[in-house]
Amino acid sequence: MAVNLHIPADDAVFPVAGIEIGVTEAGIRKADRRDLTVFRLAPGTAVAGVFTRNRFRAAPVTVCEQHLASGQPIRALVINTGNANAGTGEPGMHAARQTCDALAALMQIDPRQVLPFSTGVILEPLPVERLVAGLPGAIGNLSPGNWVGAAHGIMTTDTLPKIHSQRLSLGGRQITITGISKGAGMIRPNMATMLGYLGTDAGIAEPLLRQMAVEIADVSFNRITVDGDTSTNDSFIIMATGQSGLLVDSVTHPQYQALKSALAAAAADLAQKIVRDAEGATKFMTIRVEQAGSVEEALKVAYSVAHSPLVKTAFFASDPNLGRILAAIGYAGVDDLDVTGVRLWLGDVLVATQGGRNPDYQEADGQRVMKQAEILVRIALGRGSVTETVYTCDFSHEYVSINADYRS
Amino acid sequence: MAVNLHIPADDAVFPVAGIEIGVTEAGIRKADRRDLTVFRLAPGTAVAGVFTRNRFRAAPVTVCEQHLASGQPIRALVINTGNANAGTGEPGMHAARQTCDALAALMQIDPRQVLPFSTGVILEPLPVERLVAGLPGAIGNLSPGNWVGAAHGIMTTDTLPKIHSQRLSLGGRQITITGISKGAGMIRPNMATMLGYLGTDAGIAEPLLRQMAVEIADVSFNRITVDGDTSTNDSFIIMATGQSGLLVDSVTHPQYQALKSALAAAAADLAQKIVRDAEGATKFMTIRVEQAGSVEEALKVAYSVAHSPLVKTAFFASDPNLGRILAAIGYAGVDDLDVTGVRLWLGDVLVATQGGRNPDYQEADGQRVMKQAEILVRIALGRGSVTETVYTCDFSHEYVSINADYRS
Repeated sequence: MAVNLHIPADDAVFPVAGIEIGVTEAGIRKADRRDLTVFRLAPGTAVAGVFTRNRFRAAPVTVCEQHLASGQPIRALVINTGNANAGTGEPGMHAARQTCDALAALMQIDPRQVLPFSTGVILEPLPVERLVAGLPGAIGNLSPGNWVGAAHGIMTTDTLPKIHSQRLSLGGRQITITGISKGAGMIRPNMATMLGYLGTDAGIAEPLLRQMAVEIADVSFNRITVDGDTSTNDSFIIMATGQSGLLVDSVTHPQYQALKSALAAAAADLAQKIVRDAEGATKFMTIRVEQAGSVEEALKVAYSVAHSPLVKTAFFASDPNLGRILAAIGYAGVDDLDVTGVRLWLGDVLVATQGGRNPDYQEADGQRVMKQAEILVRIALGRGSVTETVYTCDFSHEYVSINADYRS
Repeated sequence: MAVNLHIPADDAVFPVAGIEIGVTEAGIRKADRRDLTVFRLAPGTAVAGVFTRNRFRAAPVTVCEQHLASGQPIRALVINTGNANAGTGEPGMHAARQTCDALAALMQIDPRQVLPFSTGVILEPLPVERLVAGLPGAIGNLSPGNWVGAAHGIMTTDTLPKIHSQRLSLGGRQITITGISKGAGMIRPNMATMLGYLGTDAGIAEPLLRQMAVEIADVSFNRITVDGDTSTNDSFIIMATGQSGLLVDSVTHPQYQALKSALAAAAADLAQKIVRDAEGATKFMTIRVEQAGSVEEALKVAYSVAHSPLVKTAFFASDPNLGRILAAIGYAGVDDLDVTGVRLWLGDVLVATQGGRNPDYQEADGQRVMKQAEILVRIALGRGSVTETVYTCDFSHEYVSINADYRS
């Protein structure tokens, strides 16, 4: 019951020169399921990543950061589903390193040139032998046209694959941006992980790419929430092969802004697709906070509304239960908020103003908006000029079913 | 389906000398329902209150604070259900003042000697005429034995009344403590409010009582959560009539600690009763964080676990899904948390240690604990010596039903 989640046609998913992908069934947790994906990156590819801030971060996340910091050029990614290799202590670190060693040996590269990713159950040992035994199959399958296969290969309990692909002209060159993501919330029940991989044949100098990755994550993957549960394994990777011939090497490069915007739009689309496929979601909500005094307070208010179980269940019920939204704004932690300056819109309908209900508001107008599958909640704080936007979904019976019944 | 919520027998609910209570049906929202309660306090009664920090605080909360600050001795409380008088702007303030004026005229006191409280739907005008018309009936009904009636009279969608009553001997005198509360979470769907009223015939000097009220709220009503939604109307009031002859006038008084402990235990019981009757609750969970470096970080971790929808649905399913608890600890915002020092127990079962699963842990042991109706989640952070405890409940299908279907 994903909300307006569109899958591009196969011929609208463009390969990225310099990136090959192999997908196989390694039987890590279940048989007959694509669960092992390998990316091979051409020499010269710049890679940057952004990772979860959860202190219980998974072993592969730690290894990724070590390898990215090693100075060795990254030449491969390896992604397994079925097991998150999180909460696994030192044996988990060993398993993640074994995975890199095995792939490096097969590809004749240094193990530090490999980034490992895992997604699946937490607190259970990674069956690393099955993973390693599957690697030759994944490598034998490497092809530039395998993005759709990879989008399936990284799914856990996602109901649909998530793919973004576009071509644009920049500085007279045709540039391709293609990416995939997975996750059905910030965390999946025992299948914890949000993963995003974005590839482009534009060239981007690696120090610049690192900075761009953080900035792009902040307007895409860091602006979605399903249940507020931050995963132990969240990872977002950008790969820039440079094979288009375009090289952007500084923020003053004439194509820098356009390229960054295009990559950010791709990442935002992949992030929003996760919300559209969120557990039990029936509505896709955009929470936009305007006239905030700072980014921090705008996000406090937006997340307070986006995380409120009472707001989320009201949206599930298509009930314009506005008091719940006002209450969530009120307890967001903006201590000096003057509520008489706050205005609230559902879509284009002004519902609250001057600390109370808009005198012209009609319940029927709110009802009309609430029945839509995509809803804009707009909150003006009357304090400044900062705007921030967060994307979320409603909270349904199916969310409880999925999360209460999952392991059993 | 309240969890072990016990109602004392009528003869175990002790009147408090100096406090009379009247309850009536004013038809504020629905007919044939006790919805208006008046407390009359004998001269000499000290009163203190603690109120919601929600910025969209209800009009009666603002009026309460003004009247408590006026220096006038409080002689009456008036509580209506059916309408929260919140998000009602200036007309709401006027309605709250009208209520005080009317009761003051009937009781021949100053309006500033009245504290008003409202609970019910948000964003709708308070039908103040019906409330005022009901006041003579409530006053005609005043009696010291009406605590049980009041516990019913302040209920909205609570399934059971919440009453605490005890007698103890302090300094050679018999002291009575009796109180009531309402709420089924920090907020109720459009019926927002947690209310708590605690009366004692001990005498407590008012400046001291104000300080005690804050400290007692911090270990009782400020340590419960159902869904993280802080109401616009939360109010907690202590009334000390002094009619027992005992007067505690400073923190060095020999009975100060014992009296404060008894009042705190009564408040904690009333607060926990709210969790036991929380929307859709099937489990009562105590989240105890030990070995924290500060109160702030202990509470961050405790609330992170207590608010996680994934943790709460796992408890609903009686599924010892430990990765969800570790993940919630990890994202609690303790930035320098060393997870290898964290230990986690379900009841008496050590489930995680040194950043991973306890090698001796058996799923059957976790399962045994999870099937109980009352569960202790104990988290040792290994950072210091602070302990904090928060009380919460699970997250069930019925929670979604109640909150999605309520207004319709």
